[in-house]
This record gives sequence, C-alpha cells and structure tokens, in this order.
Amino acid sequence: MNDTFDLQRRQLLLGSAGAVASAGLFGFSPLSLAAEMPLPDYVNWKNPAALIVHSANTLETRREAIGTSIVTSNEQLFVRNNLPAPDPAIVADPDAWTVAFQGVKNPRSMTLGELKNLGVETVACVLQCSGNGRAFFPHGASGTPWTVGAAGCVFWSGVPVSAVVDALGGIGDGLEYMTSTGGETLPAGIEPKDLLVERSVPLRALEHAILAWELNGEPLSLAHGGPLRLVVPGYYGVNNIKYVKQVAFTAAQTDAKIQASGYRIRPVGQGGAPDQPSMWEMSVKSWITQPLHQAKAGRVRIQGVAFGGARAVQGVEVSLDAGKNWQMARFVGPDLGPFAWRPFVLIAELKPGRYTLASRAIDAQGAVQPEERLDNERGYGHNGWQDHAVSLVVV
Amino acid sequence: MNDTFDLQRRQLLLGSAGAVASAGLFGFSPLSLAAEMPLPDYVNWKNPAALIVHSANTLETRREAIGTSIVTSNEQLFVRNNLPAPDPAIVADPDAWTVAFQGVKNPRSMTLGELKNLGVETVACVLQCSGNGRAFFPHGASGTPWTVGAAGCVFWSGVPVSAVVDALGGIGDGLEYMTSTGGETLPAGIEPKDLLVERSVPLRALEHAILAWELNGEPLSLAHGGPLRLVVPGYYGVNNIKYVKQVAFTAAQTDAKIQASGYRIRPVGQGGAPDQPSMWEMSVKSWITQPLHQAKAGRVRIQGVAFGGARAVQGVEVSLDAGKNWQMARFVGPDLGPFAWRPFVLIAELKPGRYTLASRAIDAQGAVQPEERLDNERGYGHNGWQDHAVSLVVV
Repeated sequence: MNDTFDLQRRQLLLGSAGAVASAGLFGFSPLSLAAEMPLPDYVNWKNPAALIVHSANTLETRREAIGTSIVTSNEQLFVRNNLPAPDPAIVADPDAWTVAFQGVKNPRSMTLGELKNLGVETVACVLQCSGNGRAFFPHGASGTPWTVGAAGCVFWSGVPVSAVVDALGGIGDGLEYMTSTGGETLPAGIEPKDLLVERSVPLRALEHAILAWELNGEPLSLAHGGPLRLVVPGYYGVNNIKYVKQVAFTAAQTDAKIQASGYRIRPVGQGGAPDQPSMWEMSVKSWITQPLHQAKAGRVRIQGVAFGGARAVQGVEVSLDAGKNWQMARFVGPDLGPFAWRPFVLIAELKPGRYTLASRAIDAQGAVQPEERLDNERGYGHNGWQDHAVSLVVV
Repeated sequence: MNDTFDLQRRQLLLGSAGAVASAGLFGFSPLSLAAEMPLPDYVNWKNPAALIVHSANTLETRREAIGTSIVTSNEQLFVRNNLPAPDPAIVADPDAWTVAFQGVKNPRSMTLGELKNLGVETVACVLQCSGNGRAFFPHGASGTPWTVGAAGCVFWSGVPVSAVVDALGGIGDGLEYMTSTGGETLPAGIEPKDLLVERSVPLRALEHAILAWELNGEPLSLAHGGPLRLVVPGYYGVNNIKYVKQVAFTAAQTDAKIQASGYRIRPVGQGGAPDQPSMWEMSVKSWITQPLHQAKAGRVRIQGVAFGGARAVQGVEVSLDAGKNWQMARFVGPDLGPFAWRPFVLIAELKPGRYTLASRAIDAQGAVQPEERLDNERGYGHNGWQDHAVSLVVV
C-alpha cells in the first residue's frame, strides 16, 4: 500500500514534469516518478501518458489509466517481450507468414492467407503477464516490478486452432501438449534452448485457443506479436506465443528453458524445475483503479476491474476498511464472456478521514480471491487482495 | 458497385503510392485513389492507413479496415464534426467542464466531476452518421460522399441521463423532448440558430442515454466530443451531442436549423421542414467488408458487420449472386447488446468467375434490410442492400 502523504510530497517536488507526463488526463502514480523514459520506436504510436516505460521490452499500463469501458485500447495496452521484436518486415505482408503444424495426422505448413479461410472466431480475454503484481513481493523478486498494469482486456480475432487441427486430420495419438514456438531472431553464440520462446500448454487449452491476426479491430501489430499470435484464453501471457511459427502437438513439454525451469512457481531461493507448477491458467483477481490517493468527502466513485482467470467472474466485493467489512460492487457494461474482465463500480458516501480500499472477486465456481500473496521466487501469479489495496485520504 | 477491372487498372497506374498509403495492411479502395490528404492536426494520432480524409471535419473509415473483432478502435473511428472542434483546453481539465440541466424540477449546472459520482454505465453501440451511404445516391445528394465508413462500433462509459434526472427531482410536467446543446464556438456575424448544434430527441431516448466521458477505455478525446458527449444508443450520430453544455427537457423541439429543417427525410428537390421525419432511430443494416475486389478460387472468407439500429440484430444472410439466393452467415464473438453491431462471416467455396456479394440483416422484430434505397434530398439513412453489394472477381 502507498503512503499517500509521502506521495503527495514527492508529487509536489516533481512539479510540472509530472503534470506533463500525465497530460492532465490521469492522476499521478508512484511509478510515474521513477519512469519518464520515452516510448521505444517500435511502440511510438502508443499513448505515453498511459504507460510506464520500464525498459524497451517492458511497458506497463498506469493503474489509473484503466477505465470502465471494458476494452484496453491498443495504445494503452502493456508490452512485455522476452526478446527484441523481429524485423517489421514480417507485418508488411501478413498473409505470407507461414506456420508449421506438427503432431497432426497430416503435418504441413500453412500461410496466414490460408489460415484466414479456415474459420474465424473472436474472443475477449484478459492478457496478463505472470509477473503482474511482482512489485508487491517483499523479497525483491527479480524481473520487471509490475504493480497491476501488466494486464489488459482485449478482443482477438483469428482461426480456432481446433479448426486447423481438424483440417489436418486431427491430433496424433498419445500427444498431450500443444507446444508453440515464437519467431524471434535468436542472438548468435548463445545456446538456443536458453532463449527460445517455446511454450507447452496442456491439450485442454485447445478448446478455446485461436491463432489471432487482429487485436481490438486492427491488424495485429509487431509489438503485440503480429502478424500472427497464439492466444490461449485464460492462460498467462507467456503462453500466448508472438510471431508464432510452429504449433506442434507433443508427448512431452518442451525442454526450452522458458518452459523447463522458467515460469514455475517455487519457494523463494529455490531453482526452477519441470516438476513445479507451470504458469498456465490464471486465477481470480481484481483491483481498484480509482481513486488511488485522495478524494473529496461526499459521494465517491470507487471503480476497478475483476476477472476469474480461466473461469468467469461472478462477483466482486469492496471494502472501505482494509477487509473488515465488505459490500458487493456492481458490474458495468456487457459481459464479454468468461475470459474477459468486468469493470466494477461502487459509489460510497465517505466522510473525511483515511480509508483502506480493497476489492475481492469471486469466480464462477466460488473460488474467492485470497487475502495473502503466495510468496515464490520469481514473484508470479500474485492475486492477494491485501497487497492490491489502496490507501485513500478523503478531505 | 465497383467496376473491379477499372479499379485494378487504376491501381496499377497508381503504383507504389497506393502501396504506401495502405501500409501493406489493407487492400486498395476506390476512394483511396482520390483522397490522400494528410490527417488534420487535431486527429494526428489516428491511423492514416485506415482513414479517408474528406475534409478537416470529415474522416471516413476505409471499408476494408473494419475487421471481425467488434470494436472500432479510436484510431480507426470516423470523424464528422458540424463545426470546427473547440479549443483543446477543454479536455485538459475534464472534471471542471459544466453542463446545465433544464426542464427538471431542480434545474442547475453540474461539473463533470460531480456527474462522475452520480453513477456509471457502459454501453457498446454503433455510431453512424445520418449520411452514411450518401455516395450511393444517384441524384448527387450534397454533403460528404460517405460510402460505409461513417460508422463504427464503440464502448462508451458515462452517467445515465436518467440518474441525473432523478438527482434533480425528475422531469418537469408536460415535457416531451430532451434537447441538448453542443459547446462549439459559433463564428461571429452569423445567426446562431443557423449553426448551433442543438438537437431534440423524444423522451423515449432517455431510457438508454448516457453522458459519456470515456471511449473504448480512454478519456474522451476532443475529436470525438470530449470532455463530455451525450450518447443516445440506437440514434444517428447527429443526436450524440459533442462537448455537451446543456441538457434541457422541453415541450417542443428546438428551432435550431440543424433540427427544424436539417436532418429531415424529404423528397429530392424539396426543402426541409419540421413535419418531415427527423434522423432519430437507426434502421437495420449490414455490409460486407471483405473481400471487396478479388479473391483466389477455393475457400473464400466473406465477412462484414450487421446491426439492428435501435433494436438488436437477429441474423444476417449473404448472397453470392446479387440477391437471387441467400444463405445464413454466422456471427462471431460475443453479443455486446442491442445497440452494437455483430461481425459476420461466411466461408464459401468459389470457382473462378464474377460474383455479386450482398448481405441482408434482420432485426429482432423481424424487419429485414430492404433491397432498395429510399431516395431523399440529403441522402440520409441509406440501408438498401443492393447499393452496398460488392462486385468480386475470383481467379
């Protein structure tokens, strides 16, 4: 939780630089003080006022930039690339992009042009980095210190992977994983398996997976994995392979480092290994996006987003007193399906004073967002509501 | 309908300029040949490859730029302003914007900051200019020659007007219209009523109307009516008052020219008058967005968008032979509610030859999109499927 008084003092010290950074549209945030880096060239079309630039490959959406109209615009959506983006030439002629399909009865390569005529589906889903919330782990987990903004809710359009599988004769016998490979150029002189972006997900993920060429109504950009990205609704971001060049059905998980030892939940101080839980399905989660620091006494609009992860979200509660008492918030806008988030709003009558605002979501099977984080070496999968709470001063 | 062979010849003549304009993302379109104007400054953040610039105040989304992921991004959304946009200063401090409410029991002005704490709703709806399709009228209706791109489907967030009315004691007795006024600066020396953007809609529109401050997850930009716009779901664009500065409940419609004689359906050659139908509720409509000119023989993905207007759309049919035979297309993606459009897809096996592709939508009450346009002086409300058909060459 933020120390609001400290933040106000720092904001005053920051002066006009902070005002310019927020372009008058958003309030300030603690991270905005640290990060005033310009947008990297390949994402220079994004909205700088809505983003925190951690590095050229890691851009976070500001907490206060997420509104109530459900979709996260392409200009506000976070970016997290494991490797530098490939040459922009690959999105100049998207239909020529080829993907190899293996582990099917009739394996072959297909162009994106061919895939587009196999079938089309559109899905709204939360895209969230495994490390979203890492900044809240007290042990200093290595990696980008995301708070809540390595997440967004977007529309993807593409061909269902199941339709491709059907066209290629079905999956080979005894195969248990869908193993997909990204088209990044690997630097020379380093063992490829150490860097290769190749992830395996269990076959149950096939039901909703699509190969997507469109994001929020626009051709998929290079920054977000264009011309073609594997989208696995309900799964953490790393499984959504950018510039996907191979989809293979396999008996075992890949031995690429990103799968074998990376993206595993393990005790603090312990190394990664294949027998630890992999970052696959996401869990129920919510957070408040406004207000974050200060509000005027009277009617105060408390808003945020909630999602179930791999299941629908059924409700979300808000507490004004750090979790002692809870009341149901109201979802606003249409339900975009089980993998999307839902904006929520609670309008409260608040007197002057200090409040600790928290939110707690419940998924369709009754799983409740936990109070505590699960400490783990790499700071993955944080959905504890306590660390996501907001310290509010009402004046 | 386009003459595809002529177009191909013109594209060849255009050479690399056309290739640059489409940025490799979209095919060519007839209008792209005529309009290569740069984006005006106030919308320089939009995607030039997706837009046709008719004038500084009129920008059309290219037909082929509309995909299947439902939302039209802010960067692709059309612009139609009746007057130049006000000073950008009005969006620098949005919460200070004030709106006067009249014709309620307790009339007063409220700031946007106050309105935001009254309530929040999010609605997905088609925003469409009354003159969308005007280019298809053979009598040369005056006004921007829109084909299909003066329309988009977007998310708005804001306070329900009904919640404001409740907070102000309810509507005065005997009042039948909601009359709203835009905040444009009127040029000196011209009768204000001739230029004032002030529109009246019947009270039944109150049920769904919101005062919106957010568009597709971002604070509402000046170009689209920020900081605050009246949104009347299911109604033509002109009723969605930008920079709204007054909402009044009135016994009669305003006598501003834009209402009294403008935006009226009237016979060709006849002047406008208050007894003619006003451009209020939209009608059932659809159009194909791809393919527009040429396709390879084999499986061909035919896609488009369909909506019911003021009612939900229940289905859409596609014809490959200029309307002699029809088959049902499939909607893709989640249903965003009665005022949104639905992308549709039909994958057809096509042999080489010439085809005339048409689409025909049906609304929730069974009203079918008509074959013919209704000729009228200003070229409003065109929803005839014949003029929206596409001439396709399969090779």
